[in-house]
Amino acid sequence: MEELGIDALIIGPSPDLVYLSGFGGRQSERLLLFILPRLGTPRLLLPSFEAPRIAALLPDVEMTLWDDGEDPLRDLRALVSRRTSARIGVGAQLFASTILALSDRLDEAQFVDASTVLAELRLRKSEAELELLRHTATAADATLSDLFAEELAGRAESTLAMLAAQHLLEHGVDDVGHTLVATGANTVVPHHHPSRDRVEVGATLFDIGGVYGGYRSDVTRTICVGPPDDELRRVHACVLNASEKAFSRVRPGVPAAEIDAAARQVIEEAGYGANFTHRTGHGIGLDVHEPPYLAAGDTTPLAPGMVFSIEPGIYLPGRFGVRIEDIVAVTQDGAERLNHVGRELAILR
Amino acid sequence: MEELGIDALIIGPSPDLVYLSGFGGRQSERLLLFILPRLGTPRLLLPSFEAPRIAALLPDVEMTLWDDGEDPLRDLRALVSRRTSARIGVGAQLFASTILALSDRLDEAQFVDASTVLAELRLRKSEAELELLRHTATAADATLSDLFAEELAGRAESTLAMLAAQHLLEHGVDDVGHTLVATGANTVVPHHHPSRDRVEVGATLFDIGGVYGGYRSDVTRTICVGPPDDELRRVHACVLNASEKAFSRVRPGVPAAEIDAAARQVIEEAGYGANFTHRTGHGIGLDVHEPPYLAAGDTTPLAPGMVFSIEPGIYLPGRFGVRIEDIVAVTQDGAERLNHVGRELAILR
Repeated sequence: MEELGIDALIIGPSPDLVYLSGFGGRQSERLLLFILPRLGTPRLLLPSFEAPRIAALLPDVEMTLWDDGEDPLRDLRALVSRRTSARIGVGAQLFASTILALSDRLDEAQFVDASTVLAELRLRKSEAELELLRHTATAADATLSDLFAEELAGRAESTLAMLAAQHLLEHGVDDVGHTLVATGANTVVPHHHPSRDRVEVGATLFDIGGVYGGYRSDVTRTICVGPPDDELRRVHACVLNASEKAFSRVRPGVPAAEIDAAARQVIEEAGYGANFTHRTGHGIGLDVHEPPYLAAGDTTPLAPGMVFSIEPGIYLPGRFGVRIEDIVAVTQDGAERLNHVGRELAILR
Repeated sequence: MEELGIDALIIGPSPDLVYLSGFGGRQSERLLLFILPRLGTPRLLLPSFEAPRIAALLPDVEMTLWDDGEDPLRDLRALVSRRTSARIGVGAQLFASTILALSDRLDEAQFVDASTVLAELRLRKSEAELELLRHTATAADATLSDLFAEELAGRAESTLAMLAAQHLLEHGVDDVGHTLVATGANTVVPHHHPSRDRVEVGATLFDIGGVYGGYRSDVTRTICVGPPDDELRRVHACVLNASEKAFSRVRPGVPAAEIDAAARQVIEEAGYGANFTHRTGHGIGLDVHEPPYLAAGDTTPLAPGMVFSIEPGIYLPGRFGVRIEDIVAVTQDGAERLNHVGRELAILR
């Protein structure tokens, strides 16, 4: 904060707050703000009825309380900085309504994105963070195995998405993250929303993740119900090859964009370059998408403790799409896989 | 917008966007912005790989696409307004990182909270919205009935929370909203997070909700495992009485704060005023908390189509808490209950 000339950070309930305090919660219309001055005592501004619970979680933080019906920001200036022209870092995910209210009260303050301070801290995971990421990855893997043991043909995407959510919870995540199930032509849509369409013979895609201790999983497999035709075999093999190639390049010092380029080259050489319509991957941790991004232009040099997805895909409009996604952690001299569910084309019922 | 002198609205994935377009999605690092100029064509700025899916959902909206790795805001000024000093309403839940990026590009623009335009539109629900609210309320009721049929004593709060999530999904919600289970002294904490604590003889509280078509449910019951002692009986009867009294006052024209006052008076007269530590209720719809608020100071006159919780509570530190929460819709001449699960003190195993 000193290097960047930032007088205080103001962070609402968000992954940034979990990172700083261990305390999460959900952003709502009731203002809860963690105020971290560069000099002085950290303070939490929060609804009074929440105080007993949160004081127990954060014994070292001063609390300023407000009651339902009161103005939560009445003492804001004194809490944030004595300077009228303070430079304040606001949490990237703070709601616009809040930053507008803050700027009404601190009309000479300058607001910047607190990510300038926090993103770099969150980029490299500690061993404790890696343990949480491994746990949630294992739960997602086990959920895929459960789903693949089901008779899939004829089941609605939405039914299988519900089953995926139930299995994730059984396998010990705290919350369901996402449960994407797409069959047939729906597999062409990277962010398809599960529908009442029933699983067809051919490609079906599962992209699922849970939340454990705040940390996220995100794993994708594309399987085939019944015998695959030649093109599905070829496309799946190409995506798997791109994924292997990308994984083999992961080690400290390599720029994130080079991992993207490695996967993209495999797919371009196979003639499917125009059908790989998204980046190769994204960092993952307390946010399901966070830096670094495996994309053209992200020159972040990889370093031990960075964790990201590798998820090349090929989408053939009107026909089918294939994506394979695994979470990978950078180690001292290479990479560790967090997902271990089989990556070959599974042929299921 | 004309009345308020607003030149354009900029809305990200949020309940506001669902309300305006029917399209939801999750706010992420990939910018997706619905730009609604006061004059001219609505436009969606979005990642190119999402275009096929979203164009099908929003056929009447112009699309401006950007690829992973490109600058999404390069043409922002032309998309928003020709005026350099435009007044722009930003979605209340737009991330701070986005509003800071917008204000970098539109440096003479003035930003205001789009709720000044949208909140009033969302306040009164249509019959179609009421149908979705009834559906998700019914799923939450059925989930409570399922839980109450279980043998509760000795089960971990977190296990029952997981079961609640599974039952909500079985009863046809699209997503789990919240599943709060609190037993013993944990019932004193209004927003307790389910722990590994096991259900004790005495008070246990369930506060659950799901999401259906974007709309939320939120229902709370406090039950007793084994025979209740006199104070639990007395406190539960008082909370139920406060809830009935509040419900009986709901009709068009009554200010929201009067419903709060009606519940509060019952609890104060019973000597528990200091133990009712929160407002009596909140509006519900696409957000689980939204206007109107049944709280001191909210003078909104109730009107047909408004939907809110009535949820008085009494919390006795170190002992137990009781809350009863129901969703209620204002009708032409009174009120309709959306929850129908029994409200008397249930005595369970």
